[in-house]
Amino acid sequence: MLTVAQAWEAIAQWATPLPELRVPLDEALGLVLAEPGIADLDSPPFDKSLMDGYAVRQADVATAGVTLTVLEEVLAGQVPRRPLGPGQATRIMTGAMLPEGADLVVPVEQTRTLNADRSQVEIATGGLPAGKNILRRAESTPRGTTVIPAGRLIRAVEVGCLAELGKSSVRVIRSPRVGVLATGDELVAVSERPGPGQIRNSNEPMLVAQLRQAGSQAFSLGVARDNVADLRRLVQRGLEYDVLVLSGGVSAGQVDLVPTVLAECGVQPVFHKIQLRPGQPLWFGVLERNRPATERLSPPGTGSTRERCLVFGLPGNPVSSLVCCELFVKTALRGLAGLGATPPAPTWAKLTAPHTNGGSRPTWHPAVLAFTPTGPEVATVPWVGSADLSATARANAMIGFEQPGQHYPAGTWVPVLAW
Amino acid sequence: MLTVAQAWEAIAQWATPLPELRVPLDEALGLVLAEPGIADLDSPPFDKSLMDGYAVRQADVATAGVTLTVLEEVLAGQVPRRPLGPGQATRIMTGAMLPEGADLVVPVEQTRTLNADRSQVEIATGGLPAGKNILRRAESTPRGTTVIPAGRLIRAVEVGCLAELGKSSVRVIRSPRVGVLATGDELVAVSERPGPGQIRNSNEPMLVAQLRQAGSQAFSLGVARDNVADLRRLVQRGLEYDVLVLSGGVSAGQVDLVPTVLAECGVQPVFHKIQLRPGQPLWFGVLERNRPATERLSPPGTGSTRERCLVFGLPGNPVSSLVCCELFVKTALRGLAGLGATPPAPTWAKLTAPHTNGGSRPTWHPAVLAFTPTGPEVATVPWVGSADLSATARANAMIGFEQPGQHYPAGTWVPVLAW
Repeated sequence: MLTVAQAWEAIAQWATPLPELRVPLDEALGLVLAEPGIADLDSPPFDKSLMDGYAVRQADVATAGVTLTVLEEVLAGQVPRRPLGPGQATRIMTGAMLPEGADLVVPVEQTRTLNADRSQVEIATGGLPAGKNILRRAESTPRGTTVIPAGRLIRAVEVGCLAELGKSSVRVIRSPRVGVLATGDELVAVSERPGPGQIRNSNEPMLVAQLRQAGSQAFSLGVARDNVADLRRLVQRGLEYDVLVLSGGVSAGQVDLVPTVLAECGVQPVFHKIQLRPGQPLWFGVLERNRPATERLSPPGTGSTRERCLVFGLPGNPVSSLVCCELFVKTALRGLAGLGATPPAPTWAKLTAPHTNGGSRPTWHPAVLAFTPTGPEVATVPWVGSADLSATARANAMIGFEQPGQHYPAGTWVPVLAW
Repeated sequence: MLTVAQAWEAIAQWATPLPELRVPLDEALGLVLAEPGIADLDSPPFDKSLMDGYAVRQADVATAGVTLTVLEEVLAGQVPRRPLGPGQATRIMTGAMLPEGADLVVPVEQTRTLNADRSQVEIATGGLPAGKNILRRAESTPRGTTVIPAGRLIRAVEVGCLAELGKSSVRVIRSPRVGVLATGDELVAVSERPGPGQIRNSNEPMLVAQLRQAGSQAFSLGVARDNVADLRRLVQRGLEYDVLVLSGGVSAGQVDLVPTVLAECGVQPVFHKIQLRPGQPLWFGVLERNRPATERLSPPGTGSTRERCLVFGLPGNPVSSLVCCELFVKTALRGLAGLGATPPAPTWAKLTAPHTNGGSRPTWHPAVLAFTPTGPEVATVPWVGSADLSATARANAMIGFEQPGQHYPAGTWVPVLAW
């Protein structure tokens, strides 16, 4: 049985970036940039005032209380008409272009206008250094600089930078499309009242929400009943997505339909079962759409353009399903989206109460993470097992207890994944 | 001039929850629940197996190696047809209903079937306690329990819980709608090449992205030029949103159009300028749509149903704009969305290098936050001022240096807001 680390490695081999496409900048948020963002102009394109105030010659204002003649006012977006001579000043606004000859901006708060037409200004402060309150041309970013490297996740600040660079559209990695298929005769619609032995289909909407929060486009495929015809029909529809996530139907001894139908549809198993609680029955396989039937499945080399669908069979228990989605499906999504199929990066935190990891497997346990002025703290949430979703709703994170049978004293730093 | 804390308080008085509405569950992600999620059934609704294995009578398997007669197989969703008598077992799958008389499930791994038709099973392990691997009816959540209180943010796990509770639609707080309006004659479209004194309109797409990431519906209103007619036309359009965010036009001494036009449109100022770097010129005001013109502006009492628009005038410098949006606009959005207009909750982290907070104001400085196995660490990003967006793109957080002129040695725990 694979360890969690081995499962991550196996997934990473298959979760390579999806094709690129060009999108308008206002649709790029949350995607990965596929081209570098290069400065097409110096930034700023001119010497620029960082304050509202007066552009002056530093030599003129070495001492406090000097009076200067005001030539003109320059607003942001305007071009100064007159160069500054000795004894002269230009009223200037934040972001506006400095007049020729000026080498200092005195903030308006340190000045006093002397007459109604504001033609004279007294500079209250003396001895400000040359260059103060000025951003020099190209000081922020000279033309030709790579401001944002390819491969970067586009957050709001990158949207701002790309706009500055004149990128009204950008090449990005396409975001993964995921189909979610619940399986089982016991499932009824959320709006129905379950009869004896039945439960509501809660995993499917939960997984769709979880996958959307992770930035993918996730869609419900409905519920497949435990018969070959129904399952095959819906699995075939699901295999048209980049990822197919099945909920239920992969536990040992359970109706063995899912693996059988997946095999029939050309999906080759990569692993089944991992050393993990909850989530042991996890199943992972791959469909390569244009692979000759005679060729064996092998991980793609760099630049492979084969279309494939990654298939996850998640356990039917809601908490197992949630945990496996966090740990494994999201790792695959990062790989497909161009962020690298690396394992999730933990926030580490100190345990506030001791915990013993019973059982024989590493455990990811629902937990409450809190940030305090002396560092992050975490506590497990009382929990009656992998079907207990309502207890899990009190959690905002999960703790990785990696050693089975080990006692973790209070104060131990443990890896935590925030939800 | 207000402190940051006073500004938060002033905003909180106005940022009260928006009206409720009912939405389908699959559109509720990211919204706040406006009704409690109450269990309509016991969960689980029957005694349920937590493992694939054999349901048995504990008294029969006190010692290892006992052989039992297998009555039937029960899958998830099926109802057992036969009660268990002494010496009998029922093959049972994870999630399936326990037969009457059973009080223990022995995992399949601890059993051995003795003949081809699987009519006999040997139980390898003896002495498992009664109740093991069973989730009793109502053990997770008895009927009538409030599983999710009103006011809770709906994440994926809440979607799962609400689905379990049969909520195919839920009452939620409407999400805030925000209009973003850039102002300034110096702005050109992102696709254009700026002429002398001009810059590209990068704040507007950045703010729209930032506000969308915060869960609001944000829309571009375009660029208002520095004249009354253009500004009034676009401000009036913007005042139809729940929040209007203006970028630029509020710095001291700058063309004073924005406050004047806002006043003309009925927006009453709450504050202008705060003790903060970057972001000092921040402007905040309120329009009450159906307030009699003669009545003075006063914060709403509980249950006020007045329609209003909160108006933020952000400084035009991109980093100031980014910081003010993180600190103040998002605080207002949390209030409107029903999460409480509380100040942003910091992640605290240890400084990896000393820092002196120059100047006379508290500073929020772009920074890189990293989580390590011994706690979070943070370092400032080198930065040439509030126009330097490309340096800011190397940051993933900002540090609050609250004491002006103070030296912070390496190792100091400082408040950090992750982006």
